[in-house]
Amino acid sequence: MGALERGRFAEEMMLDLTDCCGSGPESEPASAHNHHKSTIERSVKVLLQGLGEDGEREGIRRTPLRVAKAFAQGTRGYRQKVREIVQGALFPEAGLDNGAGYAGGDGGLVVVRDIDLFSYCESCLLPFSVQCHVGYVPSGQRVLGLSKLSRVADVFAKRLQEPQRLANEICAALQNSINPAGVAVALNCWHIEFLAALQCNPNPRHPSIHGMQGWLCTSVCSSSGVFKQDGSSSFWDDFVALLKFRGVNLELEPPIQPWCPSRSLELPQCNGNSTGSISNGRLSSKTVVTQSDMISAVALILESLGEDPLREELIGTPYRYVQWLLNFKRSILEPKQNGCNLSGLSSHMRIGGGVSNSPDEIHSELNLPFCSQCEHHLLPFYGVVHVAYFGGEEGEAIERAFLQSIVHSYGCKLQLQEKMTRQIAEAIFSVLSKGVMVVVEASHICMISRGIEKVGSSTATIALLGQFANDSIAKASFFQTISKSTALGG
Amino acid sequence: MGALERGRFAEEMMLDLTDCCGSGPESEPASAHNHHKSTIERSVKVLLQGLGEDGEREGIRRTPLRVAKAFAQGTRGYRQKVREIVQGALFPEAGLDNGAGYAGGDGGLVVVRDIDLFSYCESCLLPFSVQCHVGYVPSGQRVLGLSKLSRVADVFAKRLQEPQRLANEICAALQNSINPAGVAVALNCWHIEFLAALQCNPNPRHPSIHGMQGWLCTSVCSSSGVFKQDGSSSFWDDFVALLKFRGVNLELEPPIQPWCPSRSLELPQCNGNSTGSISNGRLSSKTVVTQSDMISAVALILESLGEDPLREELIGTPYRYVQWLLNFKRSILEPKQNGCNLSGLSSHMRIGGGVSNSPDEIHSELNLPFCSQCEHHLLPFYGVVHVAYFGGEEGEAIERAFLQSIVHSYGCKLQLQEKMTRQIAEAIFSVLSKGVMVVVEASHICMISRGIEKVGSSTATIALLGQFANDSIAKASFFQTISKSTALGG
Repeated sequence: MGALERGRFAEEMMLDLTDCCGSGPESEPASAHNHHKSTIERSVKVLLQGLGEDGEREGIRRTPLRVAKAFAQGTRGYRQKVREIVQGALFPEAGLDNGAGYAGGDGGLVVVRDIDLFSYCESCLLPFSVQCHVGYVPSGQRVLGLSKLSRVADVFAKRLQEPQRLANEICAALQNSINPAGVAVALNCWHIEFLAALQCNPNPRHPSIHGMQGWLCTSVCSSSGVFKQDGSSSFWDDFVALLKFRGVNLELEPPIQPWCPSRSLELPQCNGNSTGSISNGRLSSKTVVTQSDMISAVALILESLGEDPLREELIGTPYRYVQWLLNFKRSILEPKQNGCNLSGLSSHMRIGGGVSNSPDEIHSELNLPFCSQCEHHLLPFYGVVHVAYFGGEEGEAIERAFLQSIVHSYGCKLQLQEKMTRQIAEAIFSVLSKGVMVVVEASHICMISRGIEKVGSSTATIALLGQFANDSIAKASFFQTISKSTALGG
Repeated sequence: MGALERGRFAEEMMLDLTDCCGSGPESEPASAHNHHKSTIERSVKVLLQGLGEDGEREGIRRTPLRVAKAFAQGTRGYRQKVREIVQGALFPEAGLDNGAGYAGGDGGLVVVRDIDLFSYCESCLLPFSVQCHVGYVPSGQRVLGLSKLSRVADVFAKRLQEPQRLANEICAALQNSINPAGVAVALNCWHIEFLAALQCNPNPRHPSIHGMQGWLCTSVCSSSGVFKQDGSSSFWDDFVALLKFRGVNLELEPPIQPWCPSRSLELPQCNGNSTGSISNGRLSSKTVVTQSDMISAVALILESLGEDPLREELIGTPYRYVQWLLNFKRSILEPKQNGCNLSGLSSHMRIGGGVSNSPDEIHSELNLPFCSQCEHHLLPFYGVVHVAYFGGEEGEAIERAFLQSIVHSYGCKLQLQEKMTRQIAEAIFSVLSKGVMVVVEASHICMISRGIEKVGSSTATIALLGQFANDSIAKASFFQTISKSTALGG
């Protein structure tokens, strides 16, 4: 951690910034808070219009409000002060006599493992998932209330971040505020693939221990005091050993550079063609929103969150976030324009894919990956689609690659899981109309962020068309097939 | 669900109760809220005094405030209204043509799995852990925002509960507020053992899939509409099939009766010997606090939480909670009075327990279970203790049962994990003073409740005395031994 960062830190920890007087966004002066929120709402409206959406459509009418709330919640760390969290949470705890060893309030290593957090990537504005492990060595016969380690880590997670900086900031904040003999922080971070997952990649490059297929995983560490790895003490080794008990192996996931996959996008030169219709609020449904307008809108969001859009790491962020969103632009991704014209489906049929060529045979394709964007929160949801269908009259089946492109077409827009499930089923049913069954299993980022924080939750939806609606044996058999393909099923 | 319960429901959902006008405790009139909080604080002071604690001791001086906050947070569901949560979160989603099947906004099953919650047991006031799975079948071309299923479930979890009632209330609230074709709720609930875990039980009766050794697990279900298991539809079967994909098997964990282990305690007849010193606030450090005073104090807490202490299910709760607390009473559990007098340790030594009888040999005992009570929050923390030590001069080792009783002695009081770790190490070191190492791994209920909700987190602490403080090879070898004994270690 350089001198510059340390300086920024001291400032954050000591100064009474005007919007910093309490422990949460609630304490920000209401007028300023509302001003920022309505700026974000206006900016999100620009983004929706840039994506070809009708902002008055019932499903997304209140999306700008929801997104503004989510951003405020996800960056509340800017308005929190570590000192206030730690205050009053240092408790007396005796140590050992000098030389007797290490225990308790002097030298007794404390480690809290597996704290689930999420943060926002400063390079692309997408949330990333964090599993945080914190250790410290008490000194001065004082120990910290255990939950404070989690609360302090969360203050820095709830900002625009990058893994190494997040680890450094948590470490420095704990070191400065509780002044122990040392602090160790290890983070496992998962970032969604920027494009690969969208490009129907069935074999993601980085399958991870977190069960997040198609996510990039990296591990970073930060340490201070007695944890410094200069060989003078073995506290770092003890910290690593205690993490191993929980299956956390810091050596297995070397840091990835650059961490955010969007950093491989080349930034365009200066864009001078903004229509200027955003900042003054003159947006009507007729206004043509350019990419440049969208980028300006995201820069406004950054500013409203209390960030400096000209900070070096944030320069390209509005561009990158807009590129992410444009993956889900409505007009260019409707099935017909996407090489997924169902009327040409027959060319993707294969005969005799199954055991027999009978029309009674059920064909199935499991684990077709997808990544979509929740239209309520502009946040990704991702997972797999399982499809079963009765073959054509001569037992024809559909190529897996073509099913994948159907999934891709209906996934790549602002969506609902329920709607996507129905649309995929209807698309297949339109050519193979005896019976179709679609099961979609997904994780929703909006269920782990936004204060809900149900990290392990997952959502399943079903569509049953034609014969599958009544044939419980066919249905049960497909459920069985899916069960066998998952580790947990049985 | 009987007519009576339905009645109570309608009331909760419709009426504008005075302290019910917002979505959180913050909206309760400040004066009433503060009054309740200070009543709870006073009551907790009585409980601490009844446990033989010095309420002015620095570690527990603010415990009454922390406990009052935790209770308010843990029962905030009494002040929340389902209707306000669901409001505005029903979104349009097309269904299928009549007879074509089931999908989308008409008949398209939606299931959210693995929502982690916690609730408070109405029989004993201890928190219990809940894994909640909710399904519903949309109708009227309307789907509910997915996070609302979790938020509604949480409203009923954050009350004094019993698993079956919790499932019924979540189910009925969703059915009444969103009016779908049907709702299914399945809960896996884990309740800490009331006494067994404290009695050094190394082979808990109900090891559970949740990794909570020594916890009682039960599964309950509730359903409405098309999920009714009368054979007229297969939605229930589909719900069960989708849970199986995630390893949730409803048939494996039959309901336990009675659910709360404290229900096996026999309630005493009327207790008339309260000193009456609580309600009028005349508590001084000289006041003798009887068990009856403690029971009255808990009844006051129930009342302050908005509950009726005379409600049938709550009649014995104050008595049972006090019995739980009394397991951790200071005076009766100091090592000396607990059959764990260290001066008699020699009678628990065995010779030649290891490979050789050399004093250089390291002996170890792994996974000694314990359950303690966090002195900051009056909430349990539980886990295992690993002990290593150099044998006596003739290679003597300590019987496992005796080590377990040392662990028990230092666990069974209001404690800190850091202090317990040090105390166990010092106790062993006092008789085998060449070298002792103690590792304590614990889960803290105060880390999963109270708004922290870091469900998977765990805490590890170390004490290193004598030779272990400098002998990194001995230490590494013990870490290796522990790793081998856990499934995840490697």
